[in-house]
Amino acid sequence: MAISVNLNADMGEGFGAYDIGDDDAILKIIGSANIACGFHAGDPLTMRRVVQRAKEEGVSIGAHPGFNDLWGFGRRRIDMRADDLENLIAYQIGALQAMAAFAGEKVTHVKPHGALNNMAAENADYAMAIGRAIKAVDPKLIYVALSGSEMEIAAEKLGLPLAREGFCDRLYEDDGNLTSRKVPGSVIKDPAQAARQVVHMVVEGEIISRNGKRIPRKVDTLCVHGDEPTAIALARTVREALEAAGVNVIPLTEMALR
Amino acid sequence: MAISVNLNADMGEGFGAYDIGDDDAILKIIGSANIACGFHAGDPLTMRRVVQRAKEEGVSIGAHPGFNDLWGFGRRRIDMRADDLENLIAYQIGALQAMAAFAGEKVTHVKPHGALNNMAAENADYAMAIGRAIKAVDPKLIYVALSGSEMEIAAEKLGLPLAREGFCDRLYEDDGNLTSRKVPGSVIKDPAQAARQVVHMVVEGEIISRNGKRIPRKVDTLCVHGDEPTAIALARTVREALEAAGVNVIPLTEMALR
Amino acid sequence: MAISVNLNADMGEGFGAYDIGDDDAILKIIGSANIACGFHAGDPLTMRRVVQRAKEEGVSIGAHPGFNDLWGFGRRRIDMRADDLENLIAYQIGALQAMAAFAGEKVTHVKPHGALNNMAAENADYAMAIGRAIKAVDPKLIYVALSGSEMEIAAEKLGLPLAREGFCDRLYEDDGNLTSRKVPGSVIKDPAQAARQVVHMVVEGEIISRNGKRIPRKVDTLCVHGDEPTAIALARTVREALEAAGVNVIPLTEMALR
Amino acid sequence: MAISVNLNADMGEGFGAYDIGDDDAILKIIGSANIACGFHAGDPLTMRRVVQRAKEEGVSIGAHPGFNDLWGFGRRRIDMRADDLENLIAYQIGALQAMAAFAGEKVTHVKPHGALNNMAAENADYAMAIGRAIKAVDPKLIYVALSGSEMEIAAEKLGLPLAREGFCDRLYEDDGNLTSRKVPGSVIKDPAQAARQVVHMVVEGEIISRNGKRIPRKVDTLCVHGDEPTAIALARTVREALEAAGVNVIPLTEMALR
Repeated sequence: MAISVNLNADMGEGFGAYDIGDDDAILKIIGSANIACGFHAGDPLTMRRVVQRAKEEGVSIGAHPGFNDLWGFGRRRIDMRADDLENLIAYQIGALQAMAAFAGEKVTHVKPHGALNNMAAENADYAMAIGRAIKAVDPKLIYVALSGSEMEIAAEKLGLPLAREGFCDRLYEDDGNLTSRKVPGSVIKDPAQAARQVVHMVVEGEIISRNGKRIPRKVDTLCVHGDEPTAIALARTVREALEAAGVNVIPLTEMALR
Repeated sequence: MAISVNLNADMGEGFGAYDIGDDDAILKIIGSANIACGFHAGDPLTMRRVVQRAKEEGVSIGAHPGFNDLWGFGRRRIDMRADDLENLIAYQIGALQAMAAFAGEKVTHVKPHGALNNMAAENADYAMAIGRAIKAVDPKLIYVALSGSEMEIAAEKLGLPLAREGFCDRLYEDDGNLTSRKVPGSVIKDPAQAARQVVHMVVEGEIISRNGKRIPRKVDTLCVHGDEPTAIALARTVREALEAAGVNVIPLTEMALR
Repeated sequence: MAISVNLNADMGEGFGAYDIGDDDAILKIIGSANIACGFHAGDPLTMRRVVQRAKEEGVSIGAHPGFNDLWGFGRRRIDMRADDLENLIAYQIGALQAMAAFAGEKVTHVKPHGALNNMAAENADYAMAIGRAIKAVDPKLIYVALSGSEMEIAAEKLGLPLAREGFCDRLYEDDGNLTSRKVPGSVIKDPAQAARQVVHMVVEGEIISRNGKRIPRKVDTLCVHGDEPTAIALARTVREALEAAGVNVIPLTEMALR
Repeated sequence: MAISVNLNADMGEGFGAYDIGDDDAILKIIGSANIACGFHAGDPLTMRRVVQRAKEEGVSIGAHPGFNDLWGFGRRRIDMRADDLENLIAYQIGALQAMAAFAGEKVTHVKPHGALNNMAAENADYAMAIGRAIKAVDPKLIYVALSGSEMEIAAEKLGLPLAREGFCDRLYEDDGNLTSRKVPGSVIKDPAQAARQVVHMVVEGEIISRNGKRIPRKVDTLCVHGDEPTAIALARTVREALEAAGVNVIPLTEMALR
């Protein structure tokens, strides 16, 4: 039986007069787009345009909700109550659903942004709050959760469709956590190294830590980046390596999740 | 055959630490609530709470989108392109739909706020932009439009369910427009005077201008206010007068619109 | 020699259509006003008005900067870099200086708001960042710092005028920290109890913990609240008790600080 | 006696994760920088950085206040009351003064942004409101006003230092107004054409309309743009042409204004 995996990327993170990243280039590589919802980035027009472009490329669309912090680009932790977070997430999903309606498209997954994603990976209350928001708005939405994190646990508790996420371009520790960005070399810049890591992760179902330890880890989707030319080159190499290894790269909506 | 009319009011216009108006009091009087969507006022928590309270009172819910201008409370005209406005409206409707999902409720109408409502009443491009947003998100949503305005024309062109709105507490000119607020006495403060105007409008299907001219005018819904104790008293008097005249006061969703 | 103390209160925390607190009532009681700067609350018009009212009452004015979080009213911790915080504070002080210019007034102190104040009390990097912002904009500005906190240390390191702040309406632990709000009774509601605590603190230079331990603690200014009628009554009682004990209640600008 | 003129450009219009324009390139060409103040663009960190860079290049700094409209980049007209505008301007000037303090620099001019500048050029109430804000905050600040506009009149009425602004890259009508952007060719793209227009304007003190009419027009400063490589090339050509014609290109602060 053929192995399948998804590639996802954050998109629509410019707004008004501002541009970030080459959305058109990355849309040719990925299967699923995480679209900023106007809080950490994006605006209604950008959301609508990116949905339209994703549709044209056959890419499935998801909400990419973040903290309400344009100056900080959603990268600063904000210590909200879990129920405030629940509401913040639902609001942004709903907003994207409306913008998607112009193209006759459906939002099919949710992946939190930046500091919010980091907090939810570690904090069960946050992970559950995001899950409750997803469940209230549309229980068929796929919760994209860092593999092995509190988000994965929350999605399972709530019975939500789940896509476990792995990283192309980060080293892992022996305990399965990401190596801190502060450690030199923790961010993989070499496309060939990223490709090897990803193919092993997807084909063998395990991560090899930076110390060589084998960690079983299920991965349904891999995050790639489109904010720099080098990131796009790395994403393209990863995709080609997966295909060369016989892996199907498909939208989240086509995977038999859970 | 019994005559029916709707009473609507703007709600959920506080947020965070801020309160405006006595939403609980006005919910006992009206049939339909226009809920602020976080742009000119409101926030996700407030939206969710007001939906829940409206549900408990049997009041139907609508989006009350406004300009993105908290400091100005959406009362300042912003000269947007019509397509930007279309996106702004859709975004806010979608956000409220998501917050309504927590209570298992559906958004059933849309009424623009403040300066946006005033601009749309006069400007066909704006009125159509709002209508296109409604139609894209959910063509069953009722467009609450100032009776006789460009909004009414837009709703008809687009084939949207339409509720024509009249005023309890404003004088009218001979041409059917509202008397400017700058004219002394143009805002009706006397509950009895408001009640007479409204009952005549609903039962006879005509407005009597401040000069005594009779103007045929279909009215499906009347806007009342909950932001001051005197406004609530006026709203209550209007409702009682309508009921005493044999008029059924019902939610927008129960009216045979169009 | 007569003992003097200052009473300060947060003000101008409404904006646009929103009101919070009875600024006029509290201005009759305090000597110094902390004016919100448009980030967690307030807007340019409100800032200008409050400065004018403070001037009329002989109350000195200070900046009350907060996180950029209207929905959270500045009560949510945001994990900013210290240098971002430094810039955030300077910006808000400058903005208030400009609004004060309309009344020919000078900003003479700075007191951070809400979560920012709590973080700066504990975190030396934050306390120093606030101090550096003050020093850059105007080194004669008085740094209002929770007595015994990192803010007091930072003000001293930077050679800034310092006003140590104590609480009327909160219990203290044996180590001099405030009793958590989660402990029943930790917030003092009884004006007489607050008055006793304050007079002892000011006259004897010590706090008595909730277990009866005496903790030496210098206090130059006491924070009172104007957001509820009961808070205003408590503030008034505290002021009267201080005066009855022979304490002069004066603006920060009249105290011989440092 | 040598003729002098100033070149000014808008700067610091990125923020957080967003960049716009090549500020470093344009700083080498101009004499005075208009720095965005966090409302239509910019943030405190960007303001501080641009002040520092301007200082290093010997470029004088001014506030570039705009409407509070990040999504619209300050290019949408907002119908504010004149007194609200007055406060909005003062706030932004004060904020920049504080950020400039880190570099020991002084804000020396004010030039409104985008839609606000367009409105103030036509509307005497707006032009006066901006002037009153400048006068309240610092009456030595130079009011950069479109030559021949309501802003010029306002600056004169209020006795403010005035710099009359002309355009390098726009055609003029016979009445001295700018040719609408809707007219083909109204925006000059050819550096040589822009250079001829500017040198004539500065040396002869007159504009030649697109129909060839000579219109006397005093110009102290010329606006150039840094948001595209072609704009920077045009700005450089304009500067070189002025210098070749014996014109001194200097900061606003060195001109004998008024």
